[in-house]
Amino acid sequence: MRALTYHGPHDVRCETVPDPELPNERGALVQVDAAGICGSDLHIYDGHGFVPHTGYPLGHEAVGHVAEVGSAVSRFRVGDRVLVSASVGCGRCRSCGRGHVALCENPAEAGVYGIGHALGGCQAEAVAVPSADTNLVAADGLDDDAALVLTDNAPTGWYGARMGRIEPGDTVAVVGLGPVGLMALAGAFLMGASEVFAIDLVPERRARAEDMGATPIEGDAVEEIRRRTGGAGVDVAVEAVGADETIALALRLVRRTGRVSVVGVSQARAFPFDMTVAQLKALEFTIGLCSVQRELEALLPLTVSGRLHPGDVVTHRFPLSQGADAYALFASRTDGVGKVVLDCSR
Amino acid sequence: MRALTYHGPHDVRCETVPDPELPNERGALVQVDAAGICGSDLHIYDGHGFVPHTGYPLGHEAVGHVAEVGSAVSRFRVGDRVLVSASVGCGRCRSCGRGHVALCENPAEAGVYGIGHALGGCQAEAVAVPSADTNLVAADGLDDDAALVLTDNAPTGWYGARMGRIEPGDTVAVVGLGPVGLMALAGAFLMGASEVFAIDLVPERRARAEDMGATPIEGDAVEEIRRRTGGAGVDVAVEAVGADETIALALRLVRRTGRVSVVGVSQARAFPFDMTVAQLKALEFTIGLCSVQRELEALLPLTVSGRLHPGDVVTHRFPLSQGADAYALFASRTDGVGKVVLDCSR
Amino acid sequence: MRALTYHGPHDVRCETVPDPELPNERGALVQVDAAGICGSDLHIYDGHGFVPHTGYPLGHEAVGHVAEVGSAVSRFRVGDRVLVSASVGCGRCRSCGRGHVALCENPAEAGVYGIGHALGGCQAEAVAVPSADTNLVAADGLDDDAALVLTDNAPTGWYGARMGRIEPGDTVAVVGLGPVGLMALAGAFLMGASEVFAIDLVPERRARAEDMGATPIEGDAVEEIRRRTGGAGVDVAVEAVGADETIALALRLVRRTGRVSVVGVSQARAFPFDMTVAQLKALEFTIGLCSVQRELEALLPLTVSGRLHPGDVVTHRFPLSQGADAYALFASRTDGVGKVVLDCSR
Amino acid sequence: MRALTYHGPHDVRCETVPDPELPNERGALVQVDAAGICGSDLHIYDGHGFVPHTGYPLGHEAVGHVAEVGSAVSRFRVGDRVLVSASVGCGRCRSCGRGHVALCENPAEAGVYGIGHALGGCQAEAVAVPSADTNLVAADGLDDDAALVLTDNAPTGWYGARMGRIEPGDTVAVVGLGPVGLMALAGAFLMGASEVFAIDLVPERRARAEDMGATPIEGDAVEEIRRRTGGAGVDVAVEAVGADETIALALRLVRRTGRVSVVGVSQARAFPFDMTVAQLKALEFTIGLCSVQRELEALLPLTVSGRLHPGDVVTHRFPLSQGADAYALFASRTDGVGKVVLDCSR
Repeated sequence: MRALTYHGPHDVRCETVPDPELPNERGALVQVDAAGICGSDLHIYDGHGFVPHTGYPLGHEAVGHVAEVGSAVSRFRVGDRVLVSASVGCGRCRSCGRGHVALCENPAEAGVYGIGHALGGCQAEAVAVPSADTNLVAADGLDDDAALVLTDNAPTGWYGARMGRIEPGDTVAVVGLGPVGLMALAGAFLMGASEVFAIDLVPERRARAEDMGATPIEGDAVEEIRRRTGGAGVDVAVEAVGADETIALALRLVRRTGRVSVVGVSQARAFPFDMTVAQLKALEFTIGLCSVQRELEALLPLTVSGRLHPGDVVTHRFPLSQGADAYALFASRTDGVGKVVLDCSR
Repeated sequence: MRALTYHGPHDVRCETVPDPELPNERGALVQVDAAGICGSDLHIYDGHGFVPHTGYPLGHEAVGHVAEVGSAVSRFRVGDRVLVSASVGCGRCRSCGRGHVALCENPAEAGVYGIGHALGGCQAEAVAVPSADTNLVAADGLDDDAALVLTDNAPTGWYGARMGRIEPGDTVAVVGLGPVGLMALAGAFLMGASEVFAIDLVPERRARAEDMGATPIEGDAVEEIRRRTGGAGVDVAVEAVGADETIALALRLVRRTGRVSVVGVSQARAFPFDMTVAQLKALEFTIGLCSVQRELEALLPLTVSGRLHPGDVVTHRFPLSQGADAYALFASRTDGVGKVVLDCSR
Repeated sequence: MRALTYHGPHDVRCETVPDPELPNERGALVQVDAAGICGSDLHIYDGHGFVPHTGYPLGHEAVGHVAEVGSAVSRFRVGDRVLVSASVGCGRCRSCGRGHVALCENPAEAGVYGIGHALGGCQAEAVAVPSADTNLVAADGLDDDAALVLTDNAPTGWYGARMGRIEPGDTVAVVGLGPVGLMALAGAFLMGASEVFAIDLVPERRARAEDMGATPIEGDAVEEIRRRTGGAGVDVAVEAVGADETIALALRLVRRTGRVSVVGVSQARAFPFDMTVAQLKALEFTIGLCSVQRELEALLPLTVSGRLHPGDVVTHRFPLSQGADAYALFASRTDGVGKVVLDCSR
Repeated sequence: MRALTYHGPHDVRCETVPDPELPNERGALVQVDAAGICGSDLHIYDGHGFVPHTGYPLGHEAVGHVAEVGSAVSRFRVGDRVLVSASVGCGRCRSCGRGHVALCENPAEAGVYGIGHALGGCQAEAVAVPSADTNLVAADGLDDDAALVLTDNAPTGWYGARMGRIEPGDTVAVVGLGPVGLMALAGAFLMGASEVFAIDLVPERRARAEDMGATPIEGDAVEEIRRRTGGAGVDVAVEAVGADETIALALRLVRRTGRVSVVGVSQARAFPFDMTVAQLKALEFTIGLCSVQRELEALLPLTVSGRLHPGDVVTHRFPLSQGADAYALFASRTDGVGKVVLDCSR
């Protein structure tokens, strides 16, 4: 089959690789209709991958049809339309039982697609899915774009908003307006935020946030938000970048007893957290990794009923064969690029 | 001054009554700009009042300006634009301290406007407000219609939704689509409901609910909702009528582990609650009276920011002098009547 | 094997019945070491069973060792010491996925042991358990008495307290001091109750509650509790009987904004619920059936660490061969009888 | 009157100072019966105070009798026995209204006793209390020791446990076993902790924790707790020291999805927070200052009913005249010193 593979910084190729095989009796094979490129794929693209070797398939976001199921799979049949959750767990450990699939305690059955480890990549014509009853989700009533965004970006943004424990009437700031940030923004409104302030350096991204009902913030965000909240700051800040500066900004934006929720992937081993200020503010701070399946319990009905439109963040589409161009555009952050989708049938 | 007074079933008159006086050093006088007629006023209008005597002023919903304040009032000054909360409490007891003003433990300082007890009526040119720091709310950024609906109907509907503990993604049924029910519906969406089913016998009311995003239900509601929820029933039902039949309907509409929240004023001393069915469903049931001030903590920012539009339920306006006509129309439930507002300056 | 079987009102016999068989590849056989008699078994004993036929085995509380497992069972092996959950579900439906095993949506794989339906009885030398991964629980670190009470009574009492949403500092009333009520009482303290009032007609039961730290209430409970709570009533009442009078009492005992949680099994098809009083009090009311597995998430660590002592409610032990005597004693409610345990090896 | 005053590092004197005066019509004067020395007083004692000048009175923990009240005080009368809350707020701002008195938004009416700012000290024969209705609490049913610990240490420890959102069955670690840590420990049990691990370098403190039901941890706490929790770590860690090392330890002790709550007063302007580890663990982190009045809502009934024994942490008593000796002993951390109390009548 064809798949996008990584060959070094800024070198992604669509090439033929061996077909995936059924992992075991609990696994399934999925024929991929569409795959997404995620912001975290750019870490690899830029040369900051998790493994030293190259040549491995990329991608962890896929929607498609079940092509084969193991004998112990009970929830899915060949032909079912499914989305492949970016979170992979065993489904049987205590963490999985509590819905924290991303924190699965059985490393042999967990993992991440498309980073050069045991699991294959989703930017391909097919992908092998372990523990299919746990790691596939029926995509009934969802179009491809929506389903694709629901494999990772939408649940991550939603999780960020949820962990911020937004209550109706709260004011919220979202720092970083990529697909994850936009989904956090949409989530904040669905949780009753009275106003969502949208912060990003890129004007097109702020404009998109404004279209979704948010208040775009230019210039000095701390000053500007303080002014618009009667000097207090927001109740909740959701950080969707992962950089030290943006986490620090989020901490400054919240009011006393405020809550800061970080879903941007941080690689800081020693963030300089100002405990004195945090204590005087009585802050709550949370940082984590989303377990997609758990968040979908709310997101699926909201999307099917038309209250949430995850597909709206998609801005560009490419055939799989032009995956290299797709990566280059996404990495350029130009042309108003939001979510980029690959058509894996072409 | 002029006020609407009650003189017997279907006999409401606009007549001159003595001007109200400052109750004590904690009280205030409010010059009423606009007053609302509430569904519960119709109980009195139909002859089912709380007192045997007649001639007393009516109404418990008012928006206006502070005309006089007692010496111990610290939050308001003459000229402030305010809404008069329909919930009246002392502000100092344990219940008030916890936000349950409607359950105030000092009967001498609590009460209800316009029912023939100690407190005057709001459908008048002026009204005396006890414990003004507790029972007035600044109306900054609100137009008269919104402020008026926020004195009682909107907080009551919101409270119904809140006590139903709606979680994002939940399905909700609202039984009864008067102003309170419509506000419960709007609240359900702001709390993340994926779908709200709207039930009422009057087609215009269902149409208004549909305009607000709800799914109108005709015919056999139990059957119809079961069909639309995969046989399960809704997660939460909010009852905004108060009749035995509608409470019974709400109990039938919810799924297992569902929650039923009643805000319609019930006068049933012996509702035939089917415990066996409730237990097999593992139901939660709540019934109560809204404390307006507490609900406004969320509703004010949501209204000011434009996410909630309480004023939209207003359909008709009358000068105070034509209050009798206003009551007659509201009682007729014809002409698509929703919320009726009295202009107390005319 | 030997089992206790039902032959009509007050006629229970220990007789030889066919050995149970493995239900399917997900099931298991458990060799029962000890079985409990539950208050709900007395409904059958008194002639109010669920089926017209007789001769079926009784009991739904067992602790023992796994004797055989189906090929699809992954969590248990032959020889494991286990408790048999009184709640039986498929483990795969939406209800089970949310922890509500008692509300399993697959009737063919759910059910109740020992009531004459498809599932066998636990008051026997062995019992067949369907979906063993879902319906067995490892009994590590628990003695037989504790494990037995954890199969049903302790989780039911705990669930009653939990659904009452007891918060630290709350006052609580428990109505009915059988094993379930005593466990609700213990649960209330573990959830931070400042005081628990214990109500039962039987003095020995009140004395046992007092030993566990509760305040026994004699005479007019409403009056007495009002007096001891400064006129207010308790924050939460847990009802563990299921009779109309005791549910009505619970409703009267709570303060404004109080919560009433019923776990006693009610058979009322038309309980006369006073909606007017409930509304003026702003009550929350919940009634349901416990899903044992879910409650054990908290109860197991609390028991193993020695903070909860479920076994303390056991007062009498009989060999299985004297099961008829055990039932007679338990039904008599004399001799200070609390929990009665059957030694199934004898 | 006599008061303890600060004159430089390790130089505390009992001397005669001017009598306090009623601050305004909302204030009160309290004749102090007993005062406490708090760990945070040692910051000043060691020369790390908040102001450059000396000669000011010390202490922020007092229990006594109301000696004089302003005309606007409605909840207290001369002669009432009261505890003086260490948190001081105006009682009218939004923060105070939500119970966050320690975050009062009116600096002119807030503050801290005994640190050289506007408010006097509590280690004296009398103290002036602003906004008495907000900042005094009736001490009915409490002995002096209990009341004194409830002015600050007990609520702070309880707040730490509460912000950790301990759920029944959780395992908890408490880092630092001074009076605050011991109260966090007691709180953890009252919130349903199945096991509390107690960490401190001082053996006597660990022994006291063990007496209260905790599991004392010696040696490598991370390793030891991992071993005792099946490799997972605790659900919640409460930090009651405020040092970088102990905060870092708390972060290492918790399991995935664990919660860390810091109530030790931190002065770190740049704590090196390991975001990568925190994110992979999906941590929640909270740090704040307790608002005493709010926590007392639960603590008062729990103390009066005998479920909590705040007075048990008191180990030594001195007359006010020997305040210098009291400070010296407390600072030495020898002789098994826990809470030190001053008898202000002597």
